[in-house]
Amino acid sequence: MQKEEPYVIALIQMICQSSREENLQRARQRIVEAAEQGARLICLPELFCSIYFCQQEDPRFFELAETIPGYTTDYFSRLSKTVESVLMIPLFERSTSGDYYNSLVVINPDGSIAGRYRKMHIPNDPQFQEKYYFTPGDLGFQAIQTAVGKIGSMICWDQWYPEAARLCALDGAGVLIYPTAIGWLPGEKEGEGAMYLDSWKTIQRGHSIANGIYTASVNRVGIEPNQARDAEIEFWGHSFIVDPRGHIIAEASGEDEEIIYGKIEPQLTSETRQTWPFFRDRRIDAYDKLVE
Amino acid sequence: MQKEEPYVIALIQMICQSSREENLQRARQRIVEAAEQGARLICLPELFCSIYFCQQEDPRFFELAETIPGYTTDYFSRLSKTVESVLMIPLFERSTSGDYYNSLVVINPDGSIAGRYRKMHIPNDPQFQEKYYFTPGDLGFQAIQTAVGKIGSMICWDQWYPEAARLCALDGAGVLIYPTAIGWLPGEKEGEGAMYLDSWKTIQRGHSIANGIYTASVNRVGIEPNQARDAEIEFWGHSFIVDPRGHIIAEASGEDEEIIYGKIEPQLTSETRQTWPFFRDRRIDAYDKLVE
Repeated sequence: MQKEEPYVIALIQMICQSSREENLQRARQRIVEAAEQGARLICLPELFCSIYFCQQEDPRFFELAETIPGYTTDYFSRLSKTVESVLMIPLFERSTSGDYYNSLVVINPDGSIAGRYRKMHIPNDPQFQEKYYFTPGDLGFQAIQTAVGKIGSMICWDQWYPEAARLCALDGAGVLIYPTAIGWLPGEKEGEGAMYLDSWKTIQRGHSIANGIYTASVNRVGIEPNQARDAEIEFWGHSFIVDPRGHIIAEASGEDEEIIYGKIEPQLTSETRQTWPFFRDRRIDAYDKLVE
Repeated sequence: MQKEEPYVIALIQMICQSSREENLQRARQRIVEAAEQGARLICLPELFCSIYFCQQEDPRFFELAETIPGYTTDYFSRLSKTVESVLMIPLFERSTSGDYYNSLVVINPDGSIAGRYRKMHIPNDPQFQEKYYFTPGDLGFQAIQTAVGKIGSMICWDQWYPEAARLCALDGAGVLIYPTAIGWLPGEKEGEGAMYLDSWKTIQRGHSIANGIYTASVNRVGIEPNQARDAEIEFWGHSFIVDPRGHIIAEASGEDEEIIYGKIEPQLTSETRQTWPFFRDRRIDAYDKLVE
């Protein structure tokens, strides 16, 4: 792994609304603030340009999809030059061939696109009807080289798959980043809500430990009604950053818009992997059934 | 997955000494007690027949190795019939071809050997000189069919590998079981000791969450001196059992010999995998680099 310098990552936990223009402007304000605070890698939540439309299946929402490059990436390419930071911009992508993806674009401080990711693991559960909208990603799991270092960018449901985290780490990522839209359905919060939230944090802390790597997870927050029936999702916030030993170094609240910051220190990754040299002893000769 | 009945698992957290005979007798007493309490699957810590000799490299310790079947497995085959339980017996194995393995034998209540496992991931770190003693296992990761159901048996260092947990779960295991010998080197407990312990529990809770499966980890306890130099390991105990959502349902202390119990309910595994259907969306077409 190339010698890399420490830098500050910022996660923008935000409420997302129907108006793209409003979401973009509010994201821009927060990105400017995070950059002023010293952040050089700034991340937004999954599909932040709109409400989480996957609560219901409605063909009208396909109109929200955009090309890459396109309106939103142009908007943030300009901003990245102003704030001199790497920006991670999730969006609903319409490919040139007309396929739809739950995607993410990484933009360098010079405004160029450093790389993109298309969500690989697609959920389809009550009020998370993503298989209706999204073709499963076709770009695989890889570390994207950016101006601050190599990052492993995945999205939401990928959080639950140790395979995805491992692949990004093996490809040289120094941090795993998951833009997310996760929350409680009606009745869940009072019941097993705390357990769900804890499981979500625990499995991602596990990725940090297994791979000696930072993990950053950025969620939206607030209640969004289901447009089709009497239901809603309460997005549970709690965006967080984990160090390579699995320790949470920053965490947002469950209710409010917030920016959280963490220092990414490549030296700590190196030290952790010396203490816990898990990569050394992997049994690639015995993992065949993982791909069957 | 075949419809299975609930049963109670017991983990025997114990101090291990130099005398095999003494360790066997004390293990027997505790197994009898656990069976009287209703346990139908009873597990002992890694290499419990002796001190943790891997603290130092000394060829004399190869004399501790045994064949399978052999003295220790015969001893517990007789006991399994008396207590009518499945027993998980870790031991230092000398194979017929003269190779040495860090192994584990699963014995059914009729005294027959249900299966065996040879530790696949072998550590080699200060005071854990296992690569000197053990050939890496050659039997792979698989669920072993026992009288109570299919179990995924691994050993210690395997705990840190999500691949191993996944493979056992994919093969139909209802519980992952890790006999262990893990602890602090001199000075670690006061420094980052609590963090190490927390990481150890967290990554295993992560295996439960990722796979919707029970996890049980059984450690030795107490301080064992290094025979070669002024050092020691304080085995940190804290044997624990996790349910399929990642919740710890039983945990031992860090200082004492103890038996802990947990109910394995296959129905909870089924329900959890319906709520969190991670297996459904795995991308086996994109995991190739896990075996490269």
